[in-house]
Parts: sequence; structure tokens; C-alpha cells
Amino acid sequence: MNTLLLEPHNGVLHITLNRPECRNAMSLEMVNELRAVLAQLDSQTRAVVISGAGGHFCAGADVKDLVTAGNQLQALNRAFGTLLQAVEAVPQVVIVVLQGAVLGGGFGLACVSDIAIADHQAQFGLPETGLGLLPAQIAPFVVKRIGLTQARRLALTAARFDGLEAERLGVVHFTERDAQALAERLDEVLGHVLRCAPGANGRTKALLLASVDEPLEAVLDRGAQWFAEAVRGEEGIEGTQAFVQKRKPRWCK
Amino acid sequence: MNTLLLEPHNGVLHITLNRPECRNAMSLEMVNELRAVLAQLDSQTRAVVISGAGGHFCAGADVKDLVTAGNQLQALNRAFGTLLQAVEAVPQVVIVVLQGAVLGGGFGLACVSDIAIADHQAQFGLPETGLGLLPAQIAPFVVKRIGLTQARRLALTAARFDGLEAERLGVVHFTERDAQALAERLDEVLGHVLRCAPGANGRTKALLLASVDEPLEAVLDRGAQWFAEAVRGEEGIEGTQAFVQKRKPRWCK
Amino acid sequence: MNTLLLEPHNGVLHITLNRPECRNAMSLEMVNELRAVLAQLDSQTRAVVISGAGGHFCAGADVKDLVTAGNQLQALNRAFGTLLQAVEAVPQVVIVVLQGAVLGGGFGLACVSDIAIADHQAQFGLPETGLGLLPAQIAPFVVKRIGLTQARRLALTAARFDGLEAERLGVVHFTERDAQALAERLDEVLGHVLRCAPGANGRTKALLLASVDEPLEAVLDRGAQWFAEAVRGEEGIEGTQAFVQKRKPRWCK
Repeated sequence: MNTLLLEPHNGVLHITLNRPECRNAMSLEMVNELRAVLAQLDSQTRAVVISGAGGHFCAGADVKDLVTAGNQLQALNRAFGTLLQAVEAVPQVVIVVLQGAVLGGGFGLACVSDIAIADHQAQFGLPETGLGLLPAQIAPFVVKRIGLTQARRLALTAARFDGLEAERLGVVHFTERDAQALAERLDEVLGHVLRCAPGANGRTKALLLASVDEPLEAVLDRGAQWFAEAVRGEEGIEGTQAFVQKRKPRWCK
Repeated sequence: MNTLLLEPHNGVLHITLNRPECRNAMSLEMVNELRAVLAQLDSQTRAVVISGAGGHFCAGADVKDLVTAGNQLQALNRAFGTLLQAVEAVPQVVIVVLQGAVLGGGFGLACVSDIAIADHQAQFGLPETGLGLLPAQIAPFVVKRIGLTQARRLALTAARFDGLEAERLGVVHFTERDAQALAERLDEVLGHVLRCAPGANGRTKALLLASVDEPLEAVLDRGAQWFAEAVRGEEGIEGTQAFVQKRKPRWCK
Repeated sequence: MNTLLLEPHNGVLHITLNRPECRNAMSLEMVNELRAVLAQLDSQTRAVVISGAGGHFCAGADVKDLVTAGNQLQALNRAFGTLLQAVEAVPQVVIVVLQGAVLGGGFGLACVSDIAIADHQAQFGLPETGLGLLPAQIAPFVVKRIGLTQARRLALTAARFDGLEAERLGVVHFTERDAQALAERLDEVLGHVLRCAPGANGRTKALLLASVDEPLEAVLDRGAQWFAEAVRGEEGIEGTQAFVQKRKPRWCK
């Protein structure tokens, strides 16, 4: 990997966007490497933590790619949307840790996480229309994240805002004062995630995402089938036995 | 009724979940009794208030049912989803009063209310994945209630939170400090509901729910038809006359 | 125009609802005049600001129209919904400035704006069901604006609330203490809007609205096509050149 650092640890894959010389701008190579990493995740990985090297999360698209893309521009842009769809769809719990620039595509990436933790001074924004461009692949995920009412104001004013405002708007779940507090919050969140059964979490995530897109009856029917399978499955048996025996289930770390 | 107390009073049906020995866990019998009660509501009933006996709302599914369900497990689970759909769909205004445990299925039931009032110390949560199980019938209603962004964090961390956090997340509309304040808030809310025309409220509720699921044009077309019927109908004539005559309409209590 | 004041200025069309004798009640004539104005907007107009004369925004439907409409009642009501759809769909950024009464149809009009600024004492509400009527054309837009959970409480209790509560509920983006502060906030917001490229803003708005109604894949595909067109188009070239040259792009005012 040229653009990413990967550190698997204790069932968690830590991915660091690693182009600090350009605030981890999302190059085509980085998009492709992220897609490759996600495609190879297996069930041993229960959570994915994405952060950025050098004090920034991601400053958006790499402008160099736009210049050199030629007639591949449309495909290049769409590939970023495909990446966001892939991040959203993995059964693992995706956590982002946001510092510094969280702009454009970086903001989009934050919007497909399951849990987002931000430094209170992180800088969020959708600068595209100020440059005559569109937050084209990002817009739908911003609407899904915080609703149309706030998304339209942010996008149509090329707004900039900090971590506290991001929490108020519902972009992130937690804001912290410094790197130490960010690390402690991440530990706490991972602790909560890892006490949940991995298979149950993956299917629950699928049901939550389906709830947005599919008819209610279909989601409830599939949910009932999966519920019955879970009760009879390895995790359900272990979980209910552990509960009765007042011990932690085996998947707890 | 074995599991419910029913007290009709002044156009309002007060339903108390009444299995205090197990924090009103939602047994199959309770599901069936609730569905039967809802199916028999008539237009004399303008609001339904659901609360729990013994200081708790509802601690979730009854684990005994899971053990004895055998190959009926899927049907049993789906029946709870059908109950939630039925509660959501009644034309009456549904108010829940939440104290103590509001967990799993109890949380789901809270999520289909029109108005939710909680004690600030009530304990909300989705414990399922911590037991190797799924909040299968509940997940879509949590997403509908508070949006995907918060629902995914809560479900994938088996989060626990109190009434104040529930208000901040949008699960409930009001939090109160004690039983006295809960009762006063309920009185106030019922007063507001009962000054609205019952037929108009029922159709307005149907339009609001349809707005989530149906194309906008269809909802607006039906709305226009119902609006014209309302203006010419008994309630519309009484309501506009009362307004001109500066008196309360007859439906006010 | 009998019911509107129109003041084009610096790429912004200021529309004043001008029936102060009845708190700018939304008569059929006003609906038709607003629709005519919107139909004639051209690309020279980058933003539309809607406010009300005489200290009120809009007190709702004009009751006289209801009385005289006869068998045109359904069409009359539906026409208001068509107006709301038209306001929502214009490529221009729509800003509303809300003072005094923001009731019924006035509330609906506020709900289709891109940016809403309110006096903290403005009076919002959905009084319809208290009169035996329905917020029929308004309901879907309230749900779209603030979600089902709060919309159902407001509509089914005929709730009244002020500007601060409107901001808390997500109806408006900003609340201000007095007319001076409202004017300053409007200036600031317009400044932010006018630094964004008008064509890019129009297409971004279309993508945001489509995100609510259309499948994700379709929105992302169209977004990629529009993104490529924007990079190669006049605005994209000017915007990226201006960025490199550290100057404001030509569209900035």
C-alpha cells in the first residue's frame, strides 16, 4: 500500500490515510487501495478504524487527478462514490477519528461511518461550489447523515464549521478536546463494540441500512428470519448461556 | 386481559403493561392482547396512553418465550413487528409514559408513539447484540424515529442511555424529574390533543405516515381530497363556526 | 402584482408577501402570483429572499377563499401544494426571513426554503386540526423538514412555538433577537451564497433533493456526469484558476 498504513490489532483493523504532505487528499490510488482493503476484510475483523496521518483526516479530492484524468473524469468521480458505498456496506463497525481537515471527500467518508469521533477544532466543510464544482458523490451521503434541511444549507453556502458544530448537526457522535481524549474515547467505543457479537452486529447493520431503502415489510420479514437463526446459532446460544451464568460471552475482549 | 390493565376515561384509553414481576417483559400473550385491544378501538377513543406497572415500562422480549417457541421462533418475532406496525397505524394519538426499563422491544414500542414522555432516569437501550441476538423487529422503527446516524451507533454498541439523552437523540419529546411531573405533563399533552378534532387528527396522522413511504404527489392529491371533505364535513363546519363565534368547538374537553 | 412586492438587487430577488391587513394570508391570488414569479426566474437570479410585510411572514390560508371556493376547494388546496413543490424545485437558493405569524401555509412555505432565518419571537404553528381541518398540503413538507417524530407531535397537538424552539426542532437555521440582527444575518448568508458558483449551486441543490426521492445509484451516476461537466465548464475553469491565482472567482459579489 502506498497511501495507507494498516495495523490489525485485537480484531480491529486500523487504517491510516497516509499522504500527510497533502493533508491526505483522496487520490485515485488511495480510493483503489481503500477498496482493495475493504474487499479483503474477513470475519476475524470486527471493526475498522479510519484516521489520517499528520493531524488531518482528509482534505478532499486530489486536484492533480482532476487535471490528468482527461475523459476519465466521470469514471474517476463515480469511483469515489463506489468507495463510499463500499465503506457503508461492510459488516464491520466503521469508526472514524477526525482531526484537522475533514473537507469534501473527507467529509463524505466521515458520513458513511457507523461512529464518528472528532477533535473539537476539526474543520468540516463542503467547499466544492465555491470552486465552481459539485459535491457530487458526497451530497447523497450528507443528506443520509444529517437530513436535507442542514445538508442544503451547508452545500449551498460552501460552509465551514468545527467539530462542536458537527456534533450539533449530527455529523459526529462525540467531540473531544485533544489527541489524548480522542484516543480514550476511541478505546471506550471499541470496548463497547467488542462486547457485541460480531455476526449479530453485521446483520443488525444490514437491517439498519435496509430500513432506509427497502419497504418495511421486507425488512421485518428478513429480520424475523435472521432473529430465529441468531437464537439457534452459535452466538445466540453462547450469549444467552453467558447471560444466565453471569459471565462475559466468549466474543468479549 | 391477563397482561394489561385497561382504563377508558374521557375519550382516552389508558393501557398499563401489567407484568411487574418481570418488568413488563413483552410475552407473546401481551403482544396478542395489545393487538386485540387495538383492533377493537372505535372512534369514541381519541387517544391511547401506554405505560407500565411497577415503575418500569417494558424490559424487552420475554426470554421464556424464546426458549419454548421451537420452530415458531420466526413467527413469534415477526408478530412483535406486526404489533409495532399496528400501534403506529391506529388513527388515535398514541402517547407513551416511560419509566425505568425501556429496553429492546420496550424501546421499539416507544418508537412508534406519537408523543413520548420520559422520566429523566428511565433506562433506554438495545441490548440484543450483546446477547448474540438482533434488534430485528425494532431496528427499522428506531431508524424511523431518530435517523440512521444515531440508530447505528446505539445498536452496534448495545448502548444504554437515560431519559435526557433520549430527548437529545429525539426518541422522546419531554423528560420530567418525577412521577408527579410526568402526570402533569401527560395531562397537559392530553389537553392539547383533545382540543384537536378527532377525525382531522386521524387523517392528519395518516398523511404524516404516508409522507415517509409514498410518493409526494400521491400524498398531496389525497391530502387535497381530504381537506375538501374536512371543510364541508361536520368537524370543519363546527370548527370554523366556533372560531368565528370565539367559543370552543364541541370536541374540546 | 397585487399581493407581492418584488425587488431585484445584485442577483437576488427579494419577494415581500404584501397583504399586511391580514398578516399576509395566502390567498389564491398570492399563490398564483408566486407561481408566476418563480416560473419567470432566469439564470441572472441566484437567490430568492421571501419575507412578509408588516411584521408577519404569513398567517396561513385565507379563510375567505375557503368560503367562496365551492366545488373548487380541492383544486384550491392542491394548488398550494404545487406552489410548495415549485419553491422547493427552483435552482436558486431560497431564503426565508420569518417574523410574527408563521402559521399553517406560512409554516409550509418556510419548510421548503434552503435557508431559514427567524426572529426569536416569531410564532410557528399548525393550527388546522384545532379548527377541524387538516394541514393537508403542508404535512409532507414538515416531515421532510424535521422528520416524522417531531412533525407528528406538532400536527396532532396543534402546537404553537417560537423561533428558538423552531431552531431546536430544525425548522430554521438561525434565530435573531431583532430586525437589525435579522438583516445582518441575511446579509451574511447572502454573502456566503454569492461566493458559490450559481450553476454549481443549482445542480448541487438538484442532487440533494434527488437524494431524498431517487435510488442512490441513479443520483451518484448523474452526479458523476455533472461533476465532469462542471470541471470542464466555464465555472469549473474559472473557479480552479481563481483558486490557483489566489483571487476571488468572477461570480463572487
